[in-house]
Amino acid sequence: MESRESRTTATDGGGVDHRRLVIAGSGIAALSAAIYAGRSNNDPLLFEGDEPGGQLTLTTEVDNYPGFPDGINGSELINRMKKQAQKFGAELKHGIVEAIDDESRPFEITLSNGDVYTADAIIVASGASARTLGIPGEGELMGYGVSTCATCDGAFFQGEDMIVVGGGDAAMEEAAFLTKFADTVYIVHRREKFRAEDYWIDRVDEMVDDGDIELLRNTEAMEIHGSQQEGVDHVSLVSHPDGHPTEKLDDPATAEEVDHFDMDVGAVFLAIGHTPNTDFLENTGVELDEDGYLVTEGGRGGGRTRTDVEGIFGAGDVVDFHYQQAVTAAGMGSQAALDVDEWLEKEDSDGR
Amino acid sequence: MESRESRTTATDGGGVDHRRLVIAGSGIAALSAAIYAGRSNNDPLLFEGDEPGGQLTLTTEVDNYPGFPDGINGSELINRMKKQAQKFGAELKHGIVEAIDDESRPFEITLSNGDVYTADAIIVASGASARTLGIPGEGELMGYGVSTCATCDGAFFQGEDMIVVGGGDAAMEEAAFLTKFADTVYIVHRREKFRAEDYWIDRVDEMVDDGDIELLRNTEAMEIHGSQQEGVDHVSLVSHPDGHPTEKLDDPATAEEVDHFDMDVGAVFLAIGHTPNTDFLENTGVELDEDGYLVTEGGRGGGRTRTDVEGIFGAGDVVDFHYQQAVTAAGMGSQAALDVDEWLEKEDSDGR
Repeated sequence: MESRESRTTATDGGGVDHRRLVIAGSGIAALSAAIYAGRSNNDPLLFEGDEPGGQLTLTTEVDNYPGFPDGINGSELINRMKKQAQKFGAELKHGIVEAIDDESRPFEITLSNGDVYTADAIIVASGASARTLGIPGEGELMGYGVSTCATCDGAFFQGEDMIVVGGGDAAMEEAAFLTKFADTVYIVHRREKFRAEDYWIDRVDEMVDDGDIELLRNTEAMEIHGSQQEGVDHVSLVSHPDGHPTEKLDDPATAEEVDHFDMDVGAVFLAIGHTPNTDFLENTGVELDEDGYLVTEGGRGGGRTRTDVEGIFGAGDVVDFHYQQAVTAAGMGSQAALDVDEWLEKEDSDGR
Repeated sequence: MESRESRTTATDGGGVDHRRLVIAGSGIAALSAAIYAGRSNNDPLLFEGDEPGGQLTLTTEVDNYPGFPDGINGSELINRMKKQAQKFGAELKHGIVEAIDDESRPFEITLSNGDVYTADAIIVASGASARTLGIPGEGELMGYGVSTCATCDGAFFQGEDMIVVGGGDAAMEEAAFLTKFADTVYIVHRREKFRAEDYWIDRVDEMVDDGDIELLRNTEAMEIHGSQQEGVDHVSLVSHPDGHPTEKLDDPATAEEVDHFDMDVGAVFLAIGHTPNTDFLENTGVELDEDGYLVTEGGRGGGRTRTDVEGIFGAGDVVDFHYQQAVTAAGMGSQAALDVDEWLEKEDSDGR
């Protein structure tokens, strides 16, 4: 109990700060939910998380959000929604939700800095983050030649050789996109076979025939060399004819069959998928799928954003592993706020 | 065969005009689908239907479409999306889809003017239209004091008495909204009991206590009097203590118990629900629910906008009878276009 008291810096006259609705996230889904929740007088408080504004802030130009015929800068779109949400009474705070106690009512929300809030309802709109390899040089050079977003950063490396890491649709799509800028795009994939759909493999094969893309199968990057001043200089790679070369290094019997080589490239794009940001739901009853995505009710009619814990709702990329568009996230965000409002109204009248 | 030939005015060198994708509708869902489909090179052709731009064009100011912190005029938002869709290659045509032959491949689409088109895929985004009473004066005065949209037209009748017809949430919401402008708002409902949620009934009851709203239960409008020059002058109504007074008129035993009276009002707002525009799907295999709404697959992952006829997809208010927001329609529209693209790619590669 003592530790609880000392943690509650979010107090107001001694009590924990209580809100009708807390939204975890500050991307498109979270802000759309905040706009609607503000208009319903549900007094939303958003915790921005460690990537304020979400994935869209990584994108320079958004051409496909309906309503902006000349396109709009990703960060500007986020800022406009933020302004709109605040206009209707939403409050945004720095803070990363670390844990939710879903056995208490109201819910108890603990931030990574130890602050504790309570809320009658929660919308989880914490998004998904791009996966990384975890190899030396990667973290240091992220944003300096290493990128998780070809559409954001491709144009900065005009005329240079580039590596795309991955074997799925996203890797193929990014590689195809990067041929606009690159001298040659090298797709580095740890297996022989690509996971991508035929459509993408066919398109990439054509570009291989044209000399724009080269495939490095059964190959993995080991280290990225360079500096924040000069960017990426070269990458150390390994390959083995049976695939998964770094695993082969672990076994002395196969280690010497592994081929080591370096490549001079100007940029490395990682396209090895996304991880939903749902760690903070670990000890709750909220159902996650095998990849960690939030499972919501879906179906027809209302209540589509409900999770299996009453009072907790989900929207955006943390739920949607398929479409992941700005406008689909916006749509789900507004649904979540409407679902919350309906649920809170009902709780209020049941409690009377 | 002869009649077919004479109907195909949509020919190009003798053949029927064929498109990869036809979209029935021109509201938010249809235009969002067109933006995405254009970007996927699926060459979308939109038939605008008999309410070009859809329900949103009935709204003056849209405050809750994420991205416009100062609000945006409904028609302007539609125009911006239209421009965006056209920029990516979408074509819009006047035309009302009358029938779809879903047994032929490609699909055969017949317009009300007799033109016939074919398409590999179809997105149904034909929306839902406000229901009307079908009483004398209503059609003639629609737009001249009779309205299906309080938020669009309420402000035009500042200081006047107004009637709202209906007993559901929408009627309560519109009545509450209209108290801003009206001298008194009269809610006319054919039954004793309102269908609306407690929340709305409570709010309206407070306004009744304040003298802003008056409830006319067990009452129906029989005729709306006025002129397009002068607007609505007065309304003839009937009431019966057991409800459904017009039905009571049919039976001589109860007819004389019906009370007839007139009310001087400046405007009549109809809030008796919407009907999905799905008549043209009558002879197809596409599943509709009991109210005529399109049933789509829903669920998790991709393909959520699929109907049970392969190649026909649905989005917007024609599917969604619950949320019916601009941004939810936009989200579904983009999903439909992405689903179509995935499906067409697969058909293409299967056909190779």
